Amino acid sequence: MAFVGGLGVVGGSRSPGLTCRPRRSRAIVWNVAVEGKPAIDRGAFPILEQEINGKPLVYFDSAATSQKPQSVIDTLLDYYKSANSNVHRGAHSLSARATDLYEGARDDIRDFVNAEHREEIIYTKNASEAINLVAVSWGSQNISKGDEIILTVMEHHSNLVPWQFLAERTGAVLKFVPLNSTGSGMDMEVFHSLLSDKTKLVSCGHISNVLGCCNPVEEIIAAAHAKGAKVVLDACQSVPHMTVDVQALDCDFLVASGHKMCGPTGIGFLYGKKDILEEMPPFMGGGEMIADVFMEYSTYAELPHKFEPGTPAIGEAIGLGAAVQYLNKIGMDKIHQYETEIGEYLYKRLSEFEEVKIYGPETQRAALCAFQIEGIHPSDLSVMLDLEGVAIRAGNHCTQPLHTALGEAGSARASLYFYNTFDEVDTFIEALKSAVDVLGGKLTKK
Amino acid sequence: MAFVGGLGVVGGSRSPGLTCRPRRSRAIVWNVAVEGKPAIDRGAFPILEQEINGKPLVYFDSAATSQKPQSVIDTLLDYYKSANSNVHRGAHSLSARATDLYEGARDDIRDFVNAEHREEIIYTKNASEAINLVAVSWGSQNISKGDEIILTVMEHHSNLVPWQFLAERTGAVLKFVPLNSTGSGMDMEVFHSLLSDKTKLVSCGHISNVLGCCNPVEEIIAAAHAKGAKVVLDACQSVPHMTVDVQALDCDFLVASGHKMCGPTGIGFLYGKKDILEEMPPFMGGGEMIADVFMEYSTYAELPHKFEPGTPAIGEAIGLGAAVQYLNKIGMDKIHQYETEIGEYLYKRLSEFEEVKIYGPETQRAALCAFQIEGIHPSDLSVMLDLEGVAIRAGNHCTQPLHTALGEAGSARASLYFYNTFDEVDTFIEALKSAVDVLGGKLTKK
Repeated sequence: MAFVGGLGVVGGSRSPGLTCRPRRSRAIVWNVAVEGKPAIDRGAFPILEQEINGKPLVYFDSAATSQKPQSVIDTLLDYYKSANSNVHRGAHSLSARATDLYEGARDDIRDFVNAEHREEIIYTKNASEAINLVAVSWGSQNISKGDEIILTVMEHHSNLVPWQFLAERTGAVLKFVPLNSTGSGMDMEVFHSLLSDKTKLVSCGHISNVLGCCNPVEEIIAAAHAKGAKVVLDACQSVPHMTVDVQALDCDFLVASGHKMCGPTGIGFLYGKKDILEEMPPFMGGGEMIADVFMEYSTYAELPHKFEPGTPAIGEAIGLGAAVQYLNKIGMDKIHQYETEIGEYLYKRLSEFEEVKIYGPETQRAALCAFQIEGIHPSDLSVMLDLEGVAIRAGNHCTQPLHTALGEAGSARASLYFYNTFDEVDTFIEALKSAVDVLGGKLTKK
Repeated sequence: MAFVGGLGVVGGSRSPGLTCRPRRSRAIVWNVAVEGKPAIDRGAFPILEQEINGKPLVYFDSAATSQKPQSVIDTLLDYYKSANSNVHRGAHSLSARATDLYEGARDDIRDFVNAEHREEIIYTKNASEAINLVAVSWGSQNISKGDEIILTVMEHHSNLVPWQFLAERTGAVLKFVPLNSTGSGMDMEVFHSLLSDKTKLVSCGHISNVLGCCNPVEEIIAAAHAKGAKVVLDACQSVPHMTVDVQALDCDFLVASGHKMCGPTGIGFLYGKKDILEEMPPFMGGGEMIADVFMEYSTYAELPHKFEPGTPAIGEAIGLGAAVQYLNKIGMDKIHQYETEIGEYLYKRLSEFEEVKIYGPETQRAALCAFQIEGIHPSDLSVMLDLEGVAIRAGNHCTQPLHTALGEAGSARASLYFYNTFDEVDTFIEALKSAVDVLGGKLTKK
């Protein structure tokens, strides 16, 4: 089994309790007897080959940040070793090479989310900056006192705090869609009831980083547009995991972070419809984003540069381009299919125990589970699991209002990506059992 | 000759006209007969070993961006291969490792500019963002209609456009210090005459990226403080090249870009005095920068995180830390000394010709020359030099108002760093002669 382009495939044994595995060298295909489906291209991720506290690392924290395949690491390396130069400004070969790579990555990203125009892709340092850009730039022209902005209670802080700032500056009102009665997602009835002629903007997550639910964004976007409102989609948890088509969705803006989709840190992007972006004033001032500068005023560059002040994150943008190429080579449908299956398996295994409460829907979930175990503090759990080499996250996962709504200060969260194996899920469950035992709790099979 | 830590030292021949050199493999000490001083640790920069258009690359564009030593590239590589994880939020070993590296780099930077407190160092995506942060956050609380902000005519666009935005928002007035009569620097008499009780801020470059002059920032800061005004120092062209001590200078803010000081792209930093930063409201909203988030409002994290929303440029910050360690290992005084000498040599060689006009002072210059050659367009010159493997820059170098003041649309600029050799200066001069010849101009020895 091998992918086009030489991507190796590594199998994962599902034998419960097998927490020790032989050390592997990178890119060697690991074809032990496989009961479950093999992970996708695990051998491409050198970081996964290490031991933590004497145990093989089980990295279940990909919703916080994904690991990087060798091809992305090599791209960064190659850039700094052969092409590093400032972009756009130069008339020498290195600068032209860097510019080609930097702008080529923009084409890759455009293609990846199927934007109509390349200048609809704006590089930002992360998804937070992208949302701030919209809130400040679009908000300054389109939001006034009394206007309403609809969010959901499950938003990541990055898709909440910038709107609080905007509301504070303008006197706009934030409206929140609560969870539905089962807590499996947003209450669509309330959403529709909140929409009115006062609604100027709806900003919501595509996939929740805690509930794992996929919000009905087509319905949300159509309903918002019917009221003349624009829609921002926080796609940080969807773009890395499934095909996302901005034209098919018809969202007005979309934000994503590079580091969650196999790319480097320090890079994210904003998609915006060209006609909307063209009307917006610049967000930050500096080099690159100007056309002509005089002492008292300046004129601004065309899209996308109008929104990219200063020397950009050149190497990081190129690295994100490599990540997109890598994901494309595997195929987003294949990734989504595998993650759906391993996500189901994770949910099934965690659901075996009476004391475990998993947030979000029972089906159609992302490959993550935020959960509570009766009588066990999530932080204690994550510390104990770490001793077994299992990396999960504990806290509010940047969704304090959601956790408040769930009646908890925080939760434990295991979040997977296509490089994780079914075997690792079993390792996690076994580690969980022993951690809960040490912490004085219990796990009773249903 | 070797540095502690295995830094190699590569010599440079000064034989004029020697434009062809044998290919070298990385990290091999190149000890040919040396008439001039050897470059510092040239072998550590793999990118410099390549040929451009069949000629050895002469990279004279370091004021736009510096090249990266192997140790910085290796640090990035190591981070992604062994420690990549999101910071601050986790309770697992990888996250702790990433956080230690990320915050350790902040300590390195604090030490490098001698800030009193580590939380006075704010990571930004570039220097432009750092200036925008001050203009928006500090500006929103401290600048009102009629207040005056003093800039100089030689500012980089990044230290001009954000203040134009602030002036537009608030009705503040921008005042510009012109060049002195010889064009060698700013007119200090006018500067003092512009200072008044209306002056709330002075923002100026430390070293000009075109004139190569070092502005008298101690005098500027003392005079501004005497009027109760704050001072922002744009240190993008000084911090990479000399010892800069924020406490000795007593500047209120300082900005620098990582990519100009051997660090990766996508990272820069703001230094601000702690008591001032503490009073300032957040710039952007998102994860990381909050303490508690409720639906209608949030409280903010302590410094430095209050100004670092979202997942930061973790790998890049760590890479910048490695760059600072690298520069420290060489020693900034040694770098400054070498650059002074090679800068003088560059100036001397360019001054040999009647048709060459170099901007800025004759002495006490940075290792760069922006210049005109009679009858030759700077862009044509850079294209022709590129054919000889020599990378210089042509244009206004993000200083359009300065070029307007100089009566030109643009200039050619050769900018050096410690890895450049005296031999390369000779190569550049020989290439210049032949380029000017091809372009139908002439170079007459004085």
